[in-house]
Amino acid sequence: MLPIAVDAMGGDKGPGEVVAGARQAASELGVPILLVGDPDAMGDPGDLEVLAASEVITMDEDAGAGIRRKKDSSVVRAAETVREGRASAMVSAGNTGAAMGSALLRMGRLPGVSRPAIATPIPVPGCTPTVLLDAGANAECQAAWLVQFAQMGAAYFTGRYGVEAPRVGLLSIGEEPSKGSPLVKEAHALLNAGDSAGLGGQFIGNVEGRDLMSDRVDVVVTDGFTGNIALKALEGAATVMRDAVFGVLMSTDEAVEASEVLLPLLAPLATEMDPDTYGGALLLGVDGVCIISHGSSSASAVVNAVRVARDMVDNGLVERLRQAIKG
Amino acid sequence: MLPIAVDAMGGDKGPGEVVAGARQAASELGVPILLVGDPDAMGDPGDLEVLAASEVITMDEDAGAGIRRKKDSSVVRAAETVREGRASAMVSAGNTGAAMGSALLRMGRLPGVSRPAIATPIPVPGCTPTVLLDAGANAECQAAWLVQFAQMGAAYFTGRYGVEAPRVGLLSIGEEPSKGSPLVKEAHALLNAGDSAGLGGQFIGNVEGRDLMSDRVDVVVTDGFTGNIALKALEGAATVMRDAVFGVLMSTDEAVEASEVLLPLLAPLATEMDPDTYGGALLLGVDGVCIISHGSSSASAVVNAVRVARDMVDNGLVERLRQAIKG
Repeated sequence: MLPIAVDAMGGDKGPGEVVAGARQAASELGVPILLVGDPDAMGDPGDLEVLAASEVITMDEDAGAGIRRKKDSSVVRAAETVREGRASAMVSAGNTGAAMGSALLRMGRLPGVSRPAIATPIPVPGCTPTVLLDAGANAECQAAWLVQFAQMGAAYFTGRYGVEAPRVGLLSIGEEPSKGSPLVKEAHALLNAGDSAGLGGQFIGNVEGRDLMSDRVDVVVTDGFTGNIALKALEGAATVMRDAVFGVLMSTDEAVEASEVLLPLLAPLATEMDPDTYGGALLLGVDGVCIISHGSSSASAVVNAVRVARDMVDNGLVERLRQAIKG
Repeated sequence: MLPIAVDAMGGDKGPGEVVAGARQAASELGVPILLVGDPDAMGDPGDLEVLAASEVITMDEDAGAGIRRKKDSSVVRAAETVREGRASAMVSAGNTGAAMGSALLRMGRLPGVSRPAIATPIPVPGCTPTVLLDAGANAECQAAWLVQFAQMGAAYFTGRYGVEAPRVGLLSIGEEPSKGSPLVKEAHALLNAGDSAGLGGQFIGNVEGRDLMSDRVDVVVTDGFTGNIALKALEGAATVMRDAVFGVLMSTDEAVEASEVLLPLLAPLATEMDPDTYGGALLLGVDGVCIISHGSSSASAVVNAVRVARDMVDNGLVERLRQAIKG
């Protein structure tokens, strides 16, 4: 297969962590990797192919300005490799807006897609994750875009988890169609009507915040403002709860002793709840596979991101999305 | 003091649970209680005073229609007792919309308040809770209302937790003032400008979803749609995580044995994270103290709700809000 382009300069932990993850992915998964970034800053790439890019768009930088000014930034170059057919997918743990903008500008939108959306898996203990979209690409949305998010989300869920006709819910503040913002009411009507004929999933109506981390629904559709806030609230809560439980386990000598039995049993749950396990979010609706990983991604998160990228390429995600939007 | 009116018919667990909580509150706290509801359905009220109300607005009922049709419902009557000076506060664990609507119609708004808002404490392990408002009263908001929510939230926080000049944040999808929806950008500008002079708190700018369960901020302001979704996402996550951890603790004989040491240590954390501990949400901006408890409230949640109601009466919450809005 074509290599997967990895933005070597992205992420809070620095190029060293990303490169370590990329090398691990290449050796564990046997996937060819194209590292994109500053060869002098990225440390030892091992035997991975490197595409030199002299600039970096930092985490705090304004994404739009960064993309316009820094044509030779690692993230813009990574997106170009996909457009040029030199790579099959891109992975970045850097500035989310920059990754999104680069993919949008360089790969372009799929025909008919109004707005690409960020689809993020939310861990659900003991179950398949819930896919939430839009998790932050579009702070303001129109109802028709939410219908497309539903179509793309369903196609992605089927491709990634092998579930035909996944359950699609619309995030609101009550289950009744009369509840919610004007945007939600309009989207509800569209999804209930003919517009959901080509949905590729079953529209189950409105769902609420508490359903995000449940097995009641597979794909949850919302605007990027609400989605980003819900996602970050959940991520924050998971971290706080994990730390609080861990703090109790370490709080007394007796607890530490008891924890020797329990920590190995709790480890799978901790892994299941860790966003790193899922490899990051996908930008759906661009003409290529673009994975946007958490800024805090560890090397193992990069391995998981490469795995998901490979699976989505093998799986024909882009073609699935093309059909979903056309249908 | 005047009694606290408790809607005996509200809540998923039925009148028995509410009445048990009310009796416990009266004996533990020494607070006079006025039970409002159907005497035949509420079981044994002990020596509590009862105000008969023949109707009930059920949890699933349309709140607006319920209030219009059922003038003799327990929740409407409870609100009336406050207006009439027969009770000092009302507590309901029933239909949230009905409690809100009854309080609004019967008690009325405080002068100058555009829209009352639901203020809900979000537990933060080891810290004072974060107060989130609006948690669902107003699905659509104007920027000026968010400024009032900030004023009311700060006054409430100071009254409830004794913290002067609490930190007030605006919920958005990035810390920069340029991030977010048009509503958030406009509210940010108002809060940064003269409008926050009478805030009674310090405006710290935008905060994100992950800050809700942190000690970075005291009062978080948002529209009722976003607030309700964030709150329910957090409540859902806390329940799911608690159940998952508990499941692990019970998963093997060895784990059960180890848990004998750990469960007593984890219990305070579980209590701290349980919404029942905080007695429910307050409807801020009406001319009276109105506590809206979770539908799933246990008897002990009712006790906590009565305690908060008493504290807020003793504390002059309504007068604080009146000053906050006037200032």
